[in-house]
Amino acid sequence: MQRIFVTDVAPRDGLQNQKVAVSTESKVRLIELLALAGVQSIEATSFVSPWAVPQMSDAGELTPAVSARLPGLRVSVLVPNLKGLERACSAGAREIAVVLSATETMNRKNINMGLAQATEVSELTLAEARRLGLRTRAYVAVAFECPFEGITPLDEVLRLSARMNAAGAGEIVIADTIGAASPAQVRERMRAVQETIPVEKLAMHLHDTRGMGVANAWAALEVGIRRFDASVGGIGGCPFAPGAAGNLATEDLVLLAEQGGFSTGISLDGLLDAVDFAESALGAPLGGRSINWLRGVRKRRAVE
Amino acid sequence: MQRIFVTDVAPRDGLQNQKVAVSTESKVRLIELLALAGVQSIEATSFVSPWAVPQMSDAGELTPAVSARLPGLRVSVLVPNLKGLERACSAGAREIAVVLSATETMNRKNINMGLAQATEVSELTLAEARRLGLRTRAYVAVAFECPFEGITPLDEVLRLSARMNAAGAGEIVIADTIGAASPAQVRERMRAVQETIPVEKLAMHLHDTRGMGVANAWAALEVGIRRFDASVGGIGGCPFAPGAAGNLATEDLVLLAEQGGFSTGISLDGLLDAVDFAESALGAPLGGRSINWLRGVRKRRAVE
Repeated sequence: MQRIFVTDVAPRDGLQNQKVAVSTESKVRLIELLALAGVQSIEATSFVSPWAVPQMSDAGELTPAVSARLPGLRVSVLVPNLKGLERACSAGAREIAVVLSATETMNRKNINMGLAQATEVSELTLAEARRLGLRTRAYVAVAFECPFEGITPLDEVLRLSARMNAAGAGEIVIADTIGAASPAQVRERMRAVQETIPVEKLAMHLHDTRGMGVANAWAALEVGIRRFDASVGGIGGCPFAPGAAGNLATEDLVLLAEQGGFSTGISLDGLLDAVDFAESALGAPLGGRSINWLRGVRKRRAVE
Repeated sequence: MQRIFVTDVAPRDGLQNQKVAVSTESKVRLIELLALAGVQSIEATSFVSPWAVPQMSDAGELTPAVSARLPGLRVSVLVPNLKGLERACSAGAREIAVVLSATETMNRKNINMGLAQATEVSELTLAEARRLGLRTRAYVAVAFECPFEGITPLDEVLRLSARMNAAGAGEIVIADTIGAASPAQVRERMRAVQETIPVEKLAMHLHDTRGMGVANAWAALEVGIRRFDASVGGIGGCPFAPGAAGNLATEDLVLLAEQGGFSTGISLDGLLDAVDFAESALGAPLGGRSINWLRGVRKRRAVE
């Protein structure tokens, strides 16, 4: 059976979009529940400006707390630049991720730099992280559509992916940041990017804005992609507001993969425990597209 | 651009599962809104026992009312046997559908007949309908998994599809009645069934119980299927109860198809009007996986 590798990004990409403040202790507990469910890689937090993203202001405390509690877990943290990398290292991070958006405007809106400068900063950060012996991931964000510039040119995605690869990124994560991709586009782009980057280094990060997250994951599986980001409970964006844009839910991805004959090493029951906990921490209903069915199965089994 | 043909089954498969009684007038209006949206084929009602399915007890009034109001629309009605066919004909039906479940137990639970007898009844009904010059569809239900017998043997699906084809059914509809299929299974089964039945005669009927409805539709599109059942708003089962099993939503299918480069002839805006109307008729929130996003797009456009 072929293996799928999942990085759960709920503690970072999920929680950074929430209005409710989540305590460091609750974040550690959520990560612990994910690890107990069998998730082997977590994106835990982000060393960005606490003024820009107050939800991530405890990155310096969270990182060592998770390492102490779960020494065997792969934990990556997002760093925007060399300064963020320095903070991450001081906190004991052993894996970092950089985020490069594939359009000029998105970089300007997100990090107040143009695309050229953002690319250089990502390259410098990756180089320094490698020098320090850290594991690295590089996101190519808005790789399908940009909220400001429309459809992202495929050539740009290929060019930037190749640059991140050349800069030594251990994993290149092609991200449908706003959940605008369709399976046909996923198939086309994830095939094209394999012409320059070995598929083992490629990962996919999907959002479920248009209800196509699961279908997009399937399209990526079909063209050989085996590494995926997902967020337990679909946390991300705001799942209960019109037009909201949650991440592909980890439970949906695992169900799809397992039923499709792949192994994930992840327990759906364990993921439900994590969803339950996240619901109580955020005080709001959560869950991906399969959540009602999964809970029904668990309930019936408990009765039997 | 390749064309996709959609049969909206909300008035039958959707409404037959609702606890709220919907008036004949409201059903006609829902069908009218679907036709206005560009849907060219509707499954309007079912000539089953009014005691068994009270929601469909107005089949005799609804059928002529729809024909009178929308003479150009393809309207099919479900008939369980020759008696149902006779009632449907008296009401002026020009297209009928028979439902044959692919397992012994499902047929017994559903229509109190064994598989062999149910197959013969379907064949007789199809033959008589053809003699009367009606258009015909034949469902092969629980074609992936049966709630009583587990995974349905593929051989049975192939055998029964071939029998329905030999009996002259104009369309053979392979139905994942309980929404248990995954894309890998859809790919395998929809390929296999094409070895004996021309793809132009094949349709697929999907439910979204496990959040894989859209992915399954994509898998079917990829192996050449161009005819789909869907239900506007995902009506069917009970969309707001744990473990509920709504149909694949028409708006999700249309969005998937159009973004994948297929044409459907159906307006997403028109479908939203139908969802809004169905929500008021049923007094409950409805909508497929893409509904929040679609409504957000419409709202932003209205503001501009």
